[in-house]
Amino acid sequence: MTHVKKIKVGINGYGTIGKRTATAVDQQDDMEIVGVTKTRPTYEAVVANNLGLPLYVPNDETAEEFKKAGIKVAGTIKDLYKKADIIVDCTPGDVAEAYKAEYAEAGVKGIFQGGEDHSLTGISFNASANYKESWGAQFSRIVSCNTTGLIRTLYPLDKKFKIKEVFATLVRRGADPNNSKSGPINAIEPSLKIPTHHGPDVQSIMPWLNIQTMAVKVPTTLMHLHTIVVRLEKEVTTEEVIALWKKTPRVRLVKGKNGIKSSAQIMELARDLGRSRGDMFEIIVWEDGVKAVGNTLYFYQAVHQESDVIPEIVDCIRSMCKMEEDSSRSMKKTDKAMGI
Amino acid sequence: MTHVKKIKVGINGYGTIGKRTATAVDQQDDMEIVGVTKTRPTYEAVVANNLGLPLYVPNDETAEEFKKAGIKVAGTIKDLYKKADIIVDCTPGDVAEAYKAEYAEAGVKGIFQGGEDHSLTGISFNASANYKESWGAQFSRIVSCNTTGLIRTLYPLDKKFKIKEVFATLVRRGADPNNSKSGPINAIEPSLKIPTHHGPDVQSIMPWLNIQTMAVKVPTTLMHLHTIVVRLEKEVTTEEVIALWKKTPRVRLVKGKNGIKSSAQIMELARDLGRSRGDMFEIIVWEDGVKAVGNTLYFYQAVHQESDVIPEIVDCIRSMCKMEEDSSRSMKKTDKAMGI
Amino acid sequence: MTHVKKIKVGINGYGTIGKRTATAVDQQDDMEIVGVTKTRPTYEAVVANNLGLPLYVPNDETAEEFKKAGIKVAGTIKDLYKKADIIVDCTPGDVAEAYKAEYAEAGVKGIFQGGEDHSLTGISFNASANYKESWGAQFSRIVSCNTTGLIRTLYPLDKKFKIKEVFATLVRRGADPNNSKSGPINAIEPSLKIPTHHGPDVQSIMPWLNIQTMAVKVPTTLMHLHTIVVRLEKEVTTEEVIALWKKTPRVRLVKGKNGIKSSAQIMELARDLGRSRGDMFEIIVWEDGVKAVGNTLYFYQAVHQESDVIPEIVDCIRSMCKMEEDSSRSMKKTDKAMGI
Amino acid sequence: MTHVKKIKVGINGYGTIGKRTATAVDQQDDMEIVGVTKTRPTYEAVVANNLGLPLYVPNDETAEEFKKAGIKVAGTIKDLYKKADIIVDCTPGDVAEAYKAEYAEAGVKGIFQGGEDHSLTGISFNASANYKESWGAQFSRIVSCNTTGLIRTLYPLDKKFKIKEVFATLVRRGADPNNSKSGPINAIEPSLKIPTHHGPDVQSIMPWLNIQTMAVKVPTTLMHLHTIVVRLEKEVTTEEVIALWKKTPRVRLVKGKNGIKSSAQIMELARDLGRSRGDMFEIIVWEDGVKAVGNTLYFYQAVHQESDVIPEIVDCIRSMCKMEEDSSRSMKKTDKAMGI
Repeated sequence: MTHVKKIKVGINGYGTIGKRTATAVDQQDDMEIVGVTKTRPTYEAVVANNLGLPLYVPNDETAEEFKKAGIKVAGTIKDLYKKADIIVDCTPGDVAEAYKAEYAEAGVKGIFQGGEDHSLTGISFNASANYKESWGAQFSRIVSCNTTGLIRTLYPLDKKFKIKEVFATLVRRGADPNNSKSGPINAIEPSLKIPTHHGPDVQSIMPWLNIQTMAVKVPTTLMHLHTIVVRLEKEVTTEEVIALWKKTPRVRLVKGKNGIKSSAQIMELARDLGRSRGDMFEIIVWEDGVKAVGNTLYFYQAVHQESDVIPEIVDCIRSMCKMEEDSSRSMKKTDKAMGI
Repeated sequence: MTHVKKIKVGINGYGTIGKRTATAVDQQDDMEIVGVTKTRPTYEAVVANNLGLPLYVPNDETAEEFKKAGIKVAGTIKDLYKKADIIVDCTPGDVAEAYKAEYAEAGVKGIFQGGEDHSLTGISFNASANYKESWGAQFSRIVSCNTTGLIRTLYPLDKKFKIKEVFATLVRRGADPNNSKSGPINAIEPSLKIPTHHGPDVQSIMPWLNIQTMAVKVPTTLMHLHTIVVRLEKEVTTEEVIALWKKTPRVRLVKGKNGIKSSAQIMELARDLGRSRGDMFEIIVWEDGVKAVGNTLYFYQAVHQESDVIPEIVDCIRSMCKMEEDSSRSMKKTDKAMGI
Repeated sequence: MTHVKKIKVGINGYGTIGKRTATAVDQQDDMEIVGVTKTRPTYEAVVANNLGLPLYVPNDETAEEFKKAGIKVAGTIKDLYKKADIIVDCTPGDVAEAYKAEYAEAGVKGIFQGGEDHSLTGISFNASANYKESWGAQFSRIVSCNTTGLIRTLYPLDKKFKIKEVFATLVRRGADPNNSKSGPINAIEPSLKIPTHHGPDVQSIMPWLNIQTMAVKVPTTLMHLHTIVVRLEKEVTTEEVIALWKKTPRVRLVKGKNGIKSSAQIMELARDLGRSRGDMFEIIVWEDGVKAVGNTLYFYQAVHQESDVIPEIVDCIRSMCKMEEDSSRSMKKTDKAMGI
Repeated sequence: MTHVKKIKVGINGYGTIGKRTATAVDQQDDMEIVGVTKTRPTYEAVVANNLGLPLYVPNDETAEEFKKAGIKVAGTIKDLYKKADIIVDCTPGDVAEAYKAEYAEAGVKGIFQGGEDHSLTGISFNASANYKESWGAQFSRIVSCNTTGLIRTLYPLDKKFKIKEVFATLVRRGADPNNSKSGPINAIEPSLKIPTHHGPDVQSIMPWLNIQTMAVKVPTTLMHLHTIVVRLEKEVTTEEVIALWKKTPRVRLVKGKNGIKSSAQIMELARDLGRSRGDMFEIIVWEDGVKAVGNTLYFYQAVHQESDVIPEIVDCIRSMCKMEEDSSRSMKKTDKAMGI
């Protein structure tokens, strides 16, 4: 190992992304969690306690509230800033700007999520596509789950075959599995603002890419599913494309004829593989749903919105903290530790 | 009225499409229902009785079963053939070939549904696009709900602006509202055979159209929703396209900003409009979800799978029975009687 | 007809209950709609316009907003008070108290919905059970959809067989069909406060009844479903109970063996019956799901939350406005006009 | 450890229950998996291969099919019988009778699941309630997930407070998470045969218990939820009951006020606890949803249908193979190894 000292990671917001980041960082040998934050004394805070994760809260009153609920508190968020080299910001929308200022003042690095705009940090991150752009940066941003999914399959395609244009429809889950409030229960809802923000978000990493997206929301919690049409500069065969993705990291091919007919069986596979929380970190492409016709390529891919960005976060920490210069080596290290 | 004698219509299969056809035919002044068939003595058969629809059954044993259940039977299906000028075949898959032979032998005309292949009849029908092709024909086929939806918006576009290519993703309902057996409950399932059959089905009416489709199934019962990209021969504006569809029959524009955000509110609108069975016979296009960029057009449309083909069936009867030469006049007559 | 002058009904709130009340009042020959209110210029306001319903709005600014959206406005709500004899209050929660004061000041009667507490009016209404209690009253309250459902089946049972105790589980729909925001998409959520408020709400009409309820929320939009256990003072047979409900108004028996297996087929039946908006005003009891064992009775019933209270509202108007002394006659008149 | 030799366990059917049994047995130090069977070469078979589980198939033709699909086969099911001391039968319905004969002929013990009738084995199993009844038996049966759930909470209640009668409503999931075929998508379906089979199934373990059940099916995949009313011989307090369940093995109390509002958050908790496949082996009782009023007790419990029986299967193996006489010791050993 090249690092004697482990990088100290704080996680601001211990929700869907925050807790997965905690698990993934904990699995690496060159970084460690020094604390997570939580604003309310829920069962997730109890679990954090049981896992031995130091828990930081917004202020002293909150601390009191947590203690009353029998939950151990390590300090306030300001205390966490002192202990951490880098904060992974997993807070909900609308507060990132304010936190960025706090991180800057405290002199810690910060990684934001895809819910924030590219303009917040000026740098966006995907391990395969632009690992080096975040090298040593104080702030970077992991693109959203859907954008990460699009880049994972499109970047290698573009590199090898040159893409002329992409059109994708994103069929989005209505709510995450642990959210029992939001719907729809029985409807399909289009994103009327066309093109949706996903295309420009991909362009924050691949600015040259000609991509347009449309999106609909549907009553499911498990995964997003993309239908994608790619026009390439030249003709390809279905086999060439499959061969390319077979060796692409964090892309996994499955087959309908093996019983993986829908997002339901993908999640079952993740559980069967023994993944933590039943997560599928890879982008799933149906091998028997890929078809090249001339220079046009059609395919379906599925994105596990809760987890596909997690390995990217780990790599981004390495890039920002100058821990590993080579993106491939970082990715391999991350993936091995996470069981991908 | 130009017809002294009303055309006598029999309906083989009194399910989702059959019962709507019965209602629609009953609303016309130039045709009448002479009977419907049912194979099992369910509540739908009871309703048919209560509505005074003569009920025909496969054979004498079934007749006995119906009578035991207190349901009045008018005869067997062979008796129906004798009374009818034309049979609207609304039977489930796999039996159409056999029925076609029966209709031929009995000397009645027959209209089949989109679940059957074009090759069964050699003629497929859409009122706007090819009304005359079924003129006087013994057999014709109404294309499926999704195909009808695609033709309703694409045919006028092509006529006015010339279409170079179309790519559509069909987000399909998992089951009809009255089907409580089929899922998925919580998954998205892609149609892996690419391109799906919908493109070729559109080509059974518009053989020159360059169209590719992909499809996914989602956990909803209300409507299908299409995301569509059309490349035109020349540039258009969003306004030109909207103006075109505003005067297109059986296409209805709605706005998200008026509260119609999803398929749920479309169905609510249909109920509020007093439509029979809460049906939305028109294809719904979101006016604030249409966008032309150069010669590329993006839009979302929703298709009520239970009912959009019903007015087409009525017009097809008129064409096949040589009741009205002018397609526009037939469509207007149909729509007025149905409250469209 | 006994009334020369029709009672003038205003509807405050043209949503799920309000628009159905408008339809039902319009079907009666002894009352008429003089106006409905709407706070935002949505598609529902457009439909109200198209139906010729005079539309009233909160104030002059809103009126301006409606006019800009092309929607005709008849005046502000204060103007409506002057035209109406009685207001059916279909506003959402939290504003009833304030409106009650307004109605009192304007000297109009007011009917509130089950979302409000009994204490708001001191009188609650069910046509079969306590029609006379609202006779001539200035204010009354229609109990909620679930409470109405429980009273419809329990009141006649109690009257004929005397009930010792009732235990019911209410399996509630997560959201109404036109609500695409609320969930859950994939969860069951218990109402942890035991017993739930439904028992006391039934007691606002039948104060002597020993009833306890529990409730869970599930991912469906169509209907509520109750599992009910009733302990009677003496033994009954299944047949006696079914015979009783067969002659009970606004209770409808269906059979699973006729294909009505779930709430989905009940809604299909309502559509097939030609009901406005596909409504099922009756409480549905599965005849083959009723079972008496000694003095204990088990049964399942389904409640169409959007519509079961509508006929009660019509009857309540008659009682409060002293239009018909006999509850049975009012109910028959209401039901006949509504096609029940 | 008292056993030098590990008990050899074969699993017939590597589906929802089979694969979880494999994981759980593998975690124990006194038993081992000698093989699992699979009839089709699906992704689950591939996973079994990757986990190093010897895979047995029905016959030589199937073996060929598996090999073609690149899946390693260890032999046919007859070969497995020779290696195993006991077979856990996780086959689907309708074949148990035939397999029982095969196991008998091969001289191996067999454990069946709750989908089979009690009469198949004459002995049914629950670790807390009747561990000893299966001692040394050749065949036994694990009661179903719902029955196991009912016994877990009711048996200690009855032992401590004596139960007079129980009434429960079972709100059942429509399909398992990995099943994307079955519905309902949007309906509630009652089990019309009253009382449902669950009461008699509880009585296969607690024959003296007076219990009646009703059931409905709803559109969710995660868990079943029970609403339960228990009448006890004498008055109890809510606190006494909660205290009892706090020390009951395989019962876990959660609180709505800690954010566990529905089955969705229970599954999230299981994932956060690091459980294999995100399983919740315990029956969940909402602490703030328990209420005792006099001698009547109301509570809600949730049952993870995929996994609650798994620890019971492990204990049943120990009882049948005479590995541990004391049920508490077996349960503790099982639970510790499984991380419960």
